[in-house]
Amino acid sequence: MALFAGLAAFPITPADADGRVDADGVRRLVRRLADAEVDSIGLLGSTGTYAYLSRGERRRAIEAAADEAGGAIPIMAGVGALRTDDAVALAKDARAAGAGAGLLAPVSYTPLLDEEVFVHFQTVAGESRLPLCIYNNPSVTHFSFSAELISRLSAIDGVVAVKNPAPPADQVAAHLADLRSRVPAGFSLGYSGDPGCAEAMIAGGDAWHSVLGGTFPRAALAICRAAQAGDAAKARRLNARLEPLWRLFRDLTGLRLAYAAANLLGLTNAQPPRPILPLSAAAQARVAGVIRELELG
Amino acid sequence: MALFAGLAAFPITPADADGRVDADGVRRLVRRLADAEVDSIGLLGSTGTYAYLSRGERRRAIEAAADEAGGAIPIMAGVGALRTDDAVALAKDARAAGAGAGLLAPVSYTPLLDEEVFVHFQTVAGESRLPLCIYNNPSVTHFSFSAELISRLSAIDGVVAVKNPAPPADQVAAHLADLRSRVPAGFSLGYSGDPGCAEAMIAGGDAWHSVLGGTFPRAALAICRAAQAGDAAKARRLNARLEPLWRLFRDLTGLRLAYAAANLLGLTNAQPPRPILPLSAAAQARVAGVIRELELG
Repeated sequence: MALFAGLAAFPITPADADGRVDADGVRRLVRRLADAEVDSIGLLGSTGTYAYLSRGERRRAIEAAADEAGGAIPIMAGVGALRTDDAVALAKDARAAGAGAGLLAPVSYTPLLDEEVFVHFQTVAGESRLPLCIYNNPSVTHFSFSAELISRLSAIDGVVAVKNPAPPADQVAAHLADLRSRVPAGFSLGYSGDPGCAEAMIAGGDAWHSVLGGTFPRAALAICRAAQAGDAAKARRLNARLEPLWRLFRDLTGLRLAYAAANLLGLTNAQPPRPILPLSAAAQARVAGVIRELELG
Repeated sequence: MALFAGLAAFPITPADADGRVDADGVRRLVRRLADAEVDSIGLLGSTGTYAYLSRGERRRAIEAAADEAGGAIPIMAGVGALRTDDAVALAKDARAAGAGAGLLAPVSYTPLLDEEVFVHFQTVAGESRLPLCIYNNPSVTHFSFSAELISRLSAIDGVVAVKNPAPPADQVAAHLADLRSRVPAGFSLGYSGDPGCAEAMIAGGDAWHSVLGGTFPRAALAICRAAQAGDAAKARRLNARLEPLWRLFRDLTGLRLAYAAANLLGLTNAQPPRPILPLSAAAQARVAGVIRELELG
């Protein structure tokens, strides 16, 4: 399934201060990703601020993206919500709006138990009939999936993939081997956290869920294709060349960096949803400097 | 200000599976708290599942509570939201619906920076004119307030109180003394996390923000009044007597316990919002046993 193999590019979702999505901006971002020939588009991921957008605006964003991609590039859409019934409704909307799959995060306020997350996924998959990718990202959802829970979830009809945070380079092969032994054949094992994803793809990960790819698709694709072709040395060389950018990810966070970059590239004129503040002028100048230095775009 | 002195009792907010608030159930809970003569009611706290309820339902809950309390017991309402504009709207609603103050949590998905939280509070306080209590509860908001940030926030017009997690018993006096030196006179220093709050009140805390008080108001009030009267020995004895209940808080969590208790007491017939699951029959039997054993009600 193309949706869960290779580079899944996660763009921002430009919106105004009231949370109204800029559909033309979404189209420009999607067009650029499609032109670069990413394998799939991860719309409304964490960097796509799904958690901050209303149900109606999330649907508008998916409709614009699906129309612009025109079936050439499959779209996975974030369908996470605090409430199970809301996540079901969002997954149904995503399917109707043209998404080929959903990315389901166990968004939490009250800390959730494993059984609660299991029933949540079972309900959303069963009621929506949208193929789902498990979104394991404790830094935003505050829930961490054990290998046992991923294994249980992978047996649910319609749960077809997982996106895990990339482990340290020296642990990713063992992480992959362990998970492979616990999930059905064809279940996609993907990774996120861009600085660690080159190694995850070299080790045989199925998919790289990438904020880098949503912002600088050609730079991410070059690394991804080298890893997929078995040229680990080239993948590592290209990855190491991005060190100034990885420093920006660490210092500024991927989301704040992605907004500044999209504006600097003239693709959008958008800021993150408040309370998240735009980068300072000095930080934006750093981003502009790295874009020039690395000839990104 | 009565709102931020003594026992603030935080009840659940009974609602149906679709998130529609049971206004009669809210009234029954509020009546019971008012009859027990708690100092204030903390509606729509974390245990009041504010994060899971729509703006309209949150307003309905406050209107029912304010009408039932009839001005005799002041009401503080949770006004937290991921987006700043939503928190402003909720705070305006709360004020219009009869709340005397708002409890503002820095609800987060993308981890927030101190400056972002500062501007968020400044905006909500300034635009709503609702007196605000800072809600510091990293276990649900995933943001931790430093003493420096609380100090900065306490200088904002309309930010009048803070609710901190109760520190360990041997640290609470120092914690209070440090904060007192950093905030204006009259700024309320309150604590939550029931098992540690007797010691916080003994040490001179201004307010006890209490799930125990929202569920078993007489048990909480007895401890609170003893501590306020300077009878530390009595407060500690009453607190120690609740050890079987503290064990339930630790094993089952306060929220899940509070729902089960309200149902067992015949006050509500409600379950937490999915994905949070009701307690198992065995766990409910444990709760019933402790209610009987301690003659709670």
